[in-house]
Formats: sequence, C-alpha cells, structure tokens
Amino acid sequence: MKANVTKKTLSEGLGLLERVIPSRSSNPLLTALKVEASEAGLTLSGTNLEIDLSCFVPAEVRNPQNFVVPAHLFAQIVRNLGGELVELEITGNELAVRSGGSDFKLQTGDLGAYPPLSFPTHADVSLNAEELARSFSSVRYAASNEAFQAVFRGIKLEHRPEGARVVASDGYRVAIRDFPADGNGRNLIIPARSVDELIRVLKDGEARFTYGDGLLSVTTDRVRMNLKLLDGDFPDYERVIPKDIKLQVTLPATALKDAVNRVAVLADKNANNRVEFLVSEGKLRLAAEGDYGRAQDTLDVTQGGIEPAMSLAFNARHVLDALGPIEGEAELLFSGSTSPAIFRASGGGGYMAVMVTLRV
Amino acid sequence: MKANVTKKTLSEGLGLLERVIPSRSSNPLLTALKVEASEAGLTLSGTNLEIDLSCFVPAEVRNPQNFVVPAHLFAQIVRNLGGELVELEITGNELAVRSGGSDFKLQTGDLGAYPPLSFPTHADVSLNAEELARSFSSVRYAASNEAFQAVFRGIKLEHRPEGARVVASDGYRVAIRDFPADGNGRNLIIPARSVDELIRVLKDGEARFTYGDGLLSVTTDRVRMNLKLLDGDFPDYERVIPKDIKLQVTLPATALKDAVNRVAVLADKNANNRVEFLVSEGKLRLAAEGDYGRAQDTLDVTQGGIEPAMSLAFNARHVLDALGPIEGEAELLFSGSTSPAIFRASGGGGYMAVMVTLRV
Repeated sequence: MKANVTKKTLSEGLGLLERVIPSRSSNPLLTALKVEASEAGLTLSGTNLEIDLSCFVPAEVRNPQNFVVPAHLFAQIVRNLGGELVELEITGNELAVRSGGSDFKLQTGDLGAYPPLSFPTHADVSLNAEELARSFSSVRYAASNEAFQAVFRGIKLEHRPEGARVVASDGYRVAIRDFPADGNGRNLIIPARSVDELIRVLKDGEARFTYGDGLLSVTTDRVRMNLKLLDGDFPDYERVIPKDIKLQVTLPATALKDAVNRVAVLADKNANNRVEFLVSEGKLRLAAEGDYGRAQDTLDVTQGGIEPAMSLAFNARHVLDALGPIEGEAELLFSGSTSPAIFRASGGGGYMAVMVTLRV
Repeated sequence: MKANVTKKTLSEGLGLLERVIPSRSSNPLLTALKVEASEAGLTLSGTNLEIDLSCFVPAEVRNPQNFVVPAHLFAQIVRNLGGELVELEITGNELAVRSGGSDFKLQTGDLGAYPPLSFPTHADVSLNAEELARSFSSVRYAASNEAFQAVFRGIKLEHRPEGARVVASDGYRVAIRDFPADGNGRNLIIPARSVDELIRVLKDGEARFTYGDGLLSVTTDRVRMNLKLLDGDFPDYERVIPKDIKLQVTLPATALKDAVNRVAVLADKNANNRVEFLVSEGKLRLAAEGDYGRAQDTLDVTQGGIEPAMSLAFNARHVLDALGPIEGEAELLFSGSTSPAIFRASGGGGYMAVMVTLRV
C-alpha cells in the first residue's frame, strides 16, 4: 500500500483518536490505531472499551491495505513532520512515514488480533450537532466525579414533547438545558467522560443517533462513535425545581462572578466555601468569613417579587459553576432562605441551574 | 494608617513577593508579608530564608504604620478587586482593603515576631540588569536539579578581564554566556532557584551588587534582594571545552530543533534518548531507533573543517536544551566522535553549549 495525504487532515483525525485511545493499557492492543484503507482514503479507528471512535481521512491510496500501528507514536510523528504532504507505505510489517527529509519506519501490529469495531449504517433520530454540543457543555460541570454516585456520573438526555433536554446533577445541584429537537428519541444516560469526547467531535451539521443494546451510536459527517450507556434510573430532579418564586434579582453575570470570586478568597474552605447572599432595597450584598478575616461586596441589582428582602447562603464554588454558562444578564430566583434557588440567563436560552442553599 | 494606592502597582509588587514568600510553612511567620509605610509609599518585603525580597510601591499614606498580613491572601484579594484604586486602613489588628463595592477585613499578624530583614545601602559593583537576566536565562537549563550535586545546583558568575561570564553544568554538559561588564566583582555561585527569581525581577537599568558574608545583595530601581550563596568550588569546566575542531557545520537552529524533535519520538528513552548525527557531503543525517521503529531525517548544512565526515551520538534532550538560546543560524563544532562538541550561535552573542557525546 502507498498513500498520499495532507499532514493537516491526517493530524486532525489522529488528534481525535489520540484522546480516546489509551497511551498505556494492560492490553497493549488497545493502544493501537486501526487503519482501513480504500481508494478514497483512510478510516482511522480506535477504542477504550467505553467509546469506539472512527474517523475518515481523504487520501490518495494505491493497493489499499489495512494495518494497525501504535496510535500515540504515529500521531506524534505526523504532528512533528516538516512537510505539508505525507507519504505512507506498507512494506512487510513496517509502515514508512515520509515527508520532506524525514523517513520513519514504524512497526505494525497484529491486525488479526485487533478487536472488531462495528458502526451502524442507519439512523434512528437526528439532532443538531452544535446545539447538542453546547447543551452538553453547559451542564457538564454538575455531573459527579465520585465513583459511588452511579447515575450521577452520567448526563441524562431526554426527549420531550417540546424538544430535547440534557440534565446533570450531583445531588446538591441540577443543571438543565433545553434545546429544540424533532423526533421521538429514547431517554438515556451517557457517562460524563464520554460526553466530553462527544462535545469534542460534534461541530456543525447533524448528529445522527442509532440506539443499540446499552449503546448509543453517534454519526456525524466526520466521525462515527459508539458510546456505552449508564444503566439505572436518574432521580426525579423536577421535584427540586422551585415553583413558588418569592424574590428575584437581575444583574450582569460577570459582575456577580467577579464579586463571588473576590469574597470567596476569605470563605471557609472547611465550611463549603460558604458565601452569604443578602438581598434588600435593590442591592445584593455578598459576605464571607473565615480564619483570616471577613469579606463583603455590594452590587446593584434589579429586584422583584413579593418578598422585600431575603438572606441565603451558597457554596461559592457552586455559584461560580452555575454562572459559567450564563452570558449577559443573570436572573436569580429565590423561593426562600432554605429552599433551592434557580440561576438562569435573563434572556432565556434554555439553561437553568438549581442549587440547594446552605443552612443559615 | 490610611493609604491610597493603584491596584496595578500594588498587584505588581505583591506578584513579585508572592513568588518568594512560601504559601505554607512550618513557621507560619514566614508566610506573612511585611509592609513598612512611609509618607511616600509602602515597602513590601518577605523571605523564604534563601531569598529576602523587598519592593517599593508608591502610595499616598497618612499616619504611616508598619504591619504584617498573610501574603498570599492579601495578594489574591488585591488581584480580584474590581476598582482601579485601593484604600488600605489599619484599625486595631485589622487591615481593611476597600475598592468599589468591596470591603475586606484581614487580620494582621505579630509585627514584633517577624524576622528582621536588612538590605545594604552601598553598592560594590554594578551590572546591566537586562544583560545579566538574559545571560542567566540562557544557561539556566544546564544546572542540575539533583540534590547530591552540590555546586552543580548553582550558577557560577565570573568576573574576567574581558567582561563577565555565567556558567552552569550538571557534569554532562556546560552552558556558558559571556557578556560585557566593567569593574572587578567577586566570583560566586548562586543557587539556580534563586537565579530564577533574580531573572524575574531584573528588567532594565542597573543591577547593583553588594557582597556580604556568604550573601549577595542585588538592588535595582524596583527591588532589593539578598541571596544566600552556595559554598564550594565549581569544577574546572574550561578543561572540557574542545580546542581542536575537526569538522564544523552551520544550519538554521529551528530546522535542527524541529528535526531532533521529530526523530526523538522513536529514540530509546532507556538509552539516553540517543540520536545519531552523521555529517558528510554537506548533509547532516539524524537517526534514532527504539522498540517501535527507526527514524531518519536529512538536513542540508554548510560544512567546514579538515575532516570530510564524522559520526557522533547525543542525548536528544540535551541537544534541544543546548539549541534553546540560539536564534538564527547554529554552528556545531565537532572535535571527534568521542570528544565533547560545541553548539553556539554562528552570529556570536557570547553563548556556548558544550556537550559530551554518547558512546558509539
């Protein structure tokens, strides 16, 4: 086999695969990249057993031949090449990689031993890739990293009459984003780490979903992916969303982020980074206190609702996370000092963070 | 005391101190910043017992008073403030830090218990700060990080008839930079870690040296520093510099860096990242070999000297380090396959790297 391919396209493809294929593994086969060549180009694929990923790279190929090579070494070599064009050639059990004055010989692996990866050819439902990526990105922070938290380590994707919704929670907060979607897809829970890779490969165009047994396959114009799903029931998070809003404030999200960042410096790390919010007379006063002193910051807000004043406390880290996806004006909806609060963009956009308050 | 100071100048001063003052220490006093106020401004100082650092910040001060505060918290608070102007006020044992809508109260520490720091007022010799910083930066990489290597963990500063010289070595390579200097200073060895801080504070203008007992004090327009010196004899590195050059090549430094980076991907990590250099007929061929394959790269060079060809081997990591400070054309001077080589900028500039070759 002899193939000519541009360094840029090959590097981009390898870059995606590199994130999925482990650089070390007790099963060395998993560290390999599988290359399937056709007259039209090269299909690169790899797996970490949670995610299978495959990506097509257009190339000029003569005498197509399949092979496996160490993924990370191959990617590193290609990335460092000086020329714009790369020539690949298989001779015996060696892959030659040539460009400019460079000539690399990389030993190929055992093609027969590589685990078979198969990707579906039909689609069950189709979503807008950009919307899906943005929605996943907005709620990702709220998913749990704790091994014992089972389904909380995943992000739920719901199909609802009015569109689709992604939801993440760690039991203390819930992040939700609604986005437009057609079709009647299944509800499922995708591991947050797989969502990270999904976000990375979803750019524009369509994300076509195919449902398998405990498996979701996602196909875009560039890549094909199989994702193992999480089993189990996602808790009834809607119960936590406060309905009865007693006080609400609007202010620029950046001003609030900056102020929380400031007062959090003195917040007590051993008491949930507690920051107090005191609203009254068109002002939001933030206060924190720790071993080294006290901090206070006062912001002008637009205030509404039936209660004239309210005092609540939050984990500063959670407040900053919740504000992350909000640009422009933020709207904080309070239902009481000891009940959950809602943070969302005042201009809409489908994103909402629900947070428990800390005890007063 | 009440002081008004711009956030920018105060932040810059605190930024320098933050690098020296430890954020944790078995002696909590050392994590504090000492502030000495006068009508003209605030002198911030701190120490890690290896380096004492002091820096003046112009400010409008009423009822000047000295105090100590937790250095890193104070720096973080100031950095996060929203306004351009900062008001500081001491009331009892609290420092108030105010700006815009922010009001912080930071507990001050025990001023009497803080170790006395003294800086000299006269100068023994004066060097160009920029030249000194650039020279230290060029050779820093060659200093050893191994605890057992005593003086190799320092950088030697020599005063020579024709100027000054800095030298660093770890026993396998020597990095040297000569630079213009007047005056008859002492030869001394500064710990590499203290050199890092020195590089950071030296900008332009003069660096005035004052010699103490096992101590060097450096004063610039912005800062004053005391540095503990390393005791011991720096080995006779000049013995290693090859005099009898048999073959020499010139090529763009960047092309060589890129090519070494490329072939090093396949070099054997357990064999000193060995890369072979083969020079003949106006070509430099680089080759490396490891468990996964072989790499080869050919570069055009301008070749000179009495030998028509030579083959040598180097540690790729060391080659890249040695080329680091070289811009434009690099000149490689070879005295034989098994004797040290010199890498330097072909346009001069006073920098030179001397490297041992690996066994063939």
